[in-house]
Amino acid sequence: MPPHSKVDRPLAALIVPDLLELLEEHPESIGPQTAEMHPADLADIAEALPEDMVRVFLSALPKERAGEVLEYLDEQLRTMVLEELTAVEAASLMSEMTPDERADALEELDEETADDILAEFEPAEKEETERLLEYDPYTAGGLMTTEFVSVVENLTAEQALVAVRAMSRAGRREAMYTIYTVEGSGRLRGVLSLRELLASPDGTPLSELAWSEVVSVAPDMSQEEVSQITSNYDLVALPVVDAEKRLLGVVTVDDVIDVIQEEGTEDAQKVGGMEALEEPYMQVGLWQNVRKRGGWLAVLAVGEMLTASVMARYEGEIGRVLLLSQFIPLVMSSGGNSGSQATSLIIRAMALGEVRIGDWWRVVLREIPAGFILGLLLGSLAFVRIFLWQLFGLYEYGPHSTLIAFTVGLTLVGIVTIGSITGSMLPFLLKRLGFDPASASAPFVATLVDVSGISIYFGFAYLLLSGTLL
Amino acid sequence: MPPHSKVDRPLAALIVPDLLELLEEHPESIGPQTAEMHPADLADIAEALPEDMVRVFLSALPKERAGEVLEYLDEQLRTMVLEELTAVEAASLMSEMTPDERADALEELDEETADDILAEFEPAEKEETERLLEYDPYTAGGLMTTEFVSVVENLTAEQALVAVRAMSRAGRREAMYTIYTVEGSGRLRGVLSLRELLASPDGTPLSELAWSEVVSVAPDMSQEEVSQITSNYDLVALPVVDAEKRLLGVVTVDDVIDVIQEEGTEDAQKVGGMEALEEPYMQVGLWQNVRKRGGWLAVLAVGEMLTASVMARYEGEIGRVLLLSQFIPLVMSSGGNSGSQATSLIIRAMALGEVRIGDWWRVVLREIPAGFILGLLLGSLAFVRIFLWQLFGLYEYGPHSTLIAFTVGLTLVGIVTIGSITGSMLPFLLKRLGFDPASASAPFVATLVDVSGISIYFGFAYLLLSGTLL
Repeated sequence: MPPHSKVDRPLAALIVPDLLELLEEHPESIGPQTAEMHPADLADIAEALPEDMVRVFLSALPKERAGEVLEYLDEQLRTMVLEELTAVEAASLMSEMTPDERADALEELDEETADDILAEFEPAEKEETERLLEYDPYTAGGLMTTEFVSVVENLTAEQALVAVRAMSRAGRREAMYTIYTVEGSGRLRGVLSLRELLASPDGTPLSELAWSEVVSVAPDMSQEEVSQITSNYDLVALPVVDAEKRLLGVVTVDDVIDVIQEEGTEDAQKVGGMEALEEPYMQVGLWQNVRKRGGWLAVLAVGEMLTASVMARYEGEIGRVLLLSQFIPLVMSSGGNSGSQATSLIIRAMALGEVRIGDWWRVVLREIPAGFILGLLLGSLAFVRIFLWQLFGLYEYGPHSTLIAFTVGLTLVGIVTIGSITGSMLPFLLKRLGFDPASASAPFVATLVDVSGISIYFGFAYLLLSGTLL
Repeated sequence: MPPHSKVDRPLAALIVPDLLELLEEHPESIGPQTAEMHPADLADIAEALPEDMVRVFLSALPKERAGEVLEYLDEQLRTMVLEELTAVEAASLMSEMTPDERADALEELDEETADDILAEFEPAEKEETERLLEYDPYTAGGLMTTEFVSVVENLTAEQALVAVRAMSRAGRREAMYTIYTVEGSGRLRGVLSLRELLASPDGTPLSELAWSEVVSVAPDMSQEEVSQITSNYDLVALPVVDAEKRLLGVVTVDDVIDVIQEEGTEDAQKVGGMEALEEPYMQVGLWQNVRKRGGWLAVLAVGEMLTASVMARYEGEIGRVLLLSQFIPLVMSSGGNSGSQATSLIIRAMALGEVRIGDWWRVVLREIPAGFILGLLLGSLAFVRIFLWQLFGLYEYGPHSTLIAFTVGLTLVGIVTIGSITGSMLPFLLKRLGFDPASASAPFVATLVDVSGISIYFGFAYLLLSGTLL
């Protein structure tokens, strides 16, 4: 990393001692000294301070800056700070936040505090915030900001540019890079980028410049779909419209990135066989950590207890041919591993929209041959292993060692094929039933496949060994 | 979805028959009829066409539009189309692509075709593309575009706006929303958003308007770090500078989103216990599908064969107490499941930069108590299961059923704790050794834990049952 880069996170740790001294002796110098810093860095510094100093630090900053820092602050810390302030102080800081972040921050507070703060907002701000709070936070409406730029379509490029400059002088506009053209009624008509506006000859009518096919979404569209659309069209902003196509707000790309990362984390944790955590791993307490993992672990263990009953049924066989027990772990884990691969593949492809529920049949047709070939590979390995051990006297499989090698090998062909099919189909089944396909976790698939693994194993043993060993 | 939204992907399928007719009878009408459509939608339509018609469709579009469509086209199809064209035709189309996309597209062609096309570019374009091709595609240099806006810092806001308008009239500028101020030498000095430029009074000197602390990166920074920085600072563009801090290019947020999704997919597939696929699941051929999965499956199966040797050692014990074999699957899967949870959690937290390699000690201190409590939970469940089965006569565990219940219960406490520790530490170990932490897949951890599971089980069996059953 070049020396001039300021991205070195541990910097915050270096600054803290000096900052604490400054806060005590010259709090007035903090504003000017940090004036050029990115609010994300100031938030990092705030997070490194002792908890009781965060409020002091924020109040030493100009109000506008403090509001920006709040946007980047860790959610737990932000909630703590806002609850410590009086409602008037909190409202004054929060009015500097962007409308969508402000609504998100209010949502995390307890209801009473949130209501007290809301009551202190200016009427227009209060109404706007209340409107945003009505949307489900995991939808386009919950993500959108109301700070966007729209102009009536009958202006010329020059008039529009004057209007845009006036709007940006009047205050911060979060979603500024895309300009929406609307009819008098507020109905969305077109879109153009600020670049296109700047590049156009002054007299051109906006209606001629703007693109008339605007990608837009309804406020109740899920955040997953919002992020897929934004990424497919390489948008920096996605307009949200009501049923009459009136512009309600705009989802900006930075929020979409957060959604993509959140969804990725949730899926990764679910595929790992647990409920998704509500906070980053290092911030989660022992109790949440155990609770989110314990539920699924217990369910899976209870499911896996079925194997104990299945195994009990085959105790007689194991008693007669003890060496059969040797390969139970191999059979089980191979089924689980192939299932884990298939389920991870499909869940991810679904999350990206590459595979849809109607594709299940095409997926089966891919997984059957793939699973079969993989099964042949593992089956051959096991066959060779038993053959070699017998050959070199590492273990004595007796006169029927070839039959045993066939039993294990054929079982692997079967169980790897079944694992691949089960692992790839379970996400479709769950989605069809209205569950999150990511709940088809690797451990869930492995548990499902284990019982079949044991049954196939003893099935082949019967077939091949009865009359000789069994 | 509202009726006016044009995001309904299967639309392409509806359009294709009409389009094929048009292509035959009135190809000249296709340009005007699709003039308002987003190039991503045109790319979708192209992908739905018969392969031999894609070229015909592209050539019916205005050249600039066809170049844009190429940017959104599926990589395999794009490579096919470009290889079908003459070098002159391909170069003419590709000169309409953004410089970073152009370099990416060339990288996918075979070397000879790429060289032929390069030779047909204008000299300046050729040099720029060759320079971009020199960077590793998975670094900031490989992601960046050279279409950005920089102005010398001694201009006033008004002069800068005139310059920016002239630049955007002269041609497409991809990274347009952020304006960089530079010294005469090209050294990066400051940054301001186009909004800030538009909002400022005309006479203000740029040096006063621009933010002097610019987040910037070196061209060899990995794409993972680039995406973390862009997301932390909510950037729409991240400048790339050389060792003298001269501006080389800019990474735009749409490419960052692609990186985040790519990395997420790679990690998901690796955590699932396979090598990452090179293309979306539905486009991968049987052979690649099998190859990417077979490698790890085989390695894991060979590792798992160790369990056969371990099991062989305990054959005597199984022979004496047959019912011990019943709980082997439960013990193994519980260790694997807890390991799978822990490894998924840590790999994801590392990918997001929430957990760094130096945090390993803090992670161990969280996982030991968490694993122990989870182990107690599963151990108690197993204890109760055996107790109930014995009580209701579902299985006869003999006079020492309590000892057997303790054996299984204590084994679960041990193996779930070990699973949590192994699963959480393996990503750190792999990262320390220079491997991708995501290779600490759920199946890998499960395989590692299986041998310990069996050993702990028979260890407790010895301890508790010798003298009675063993």
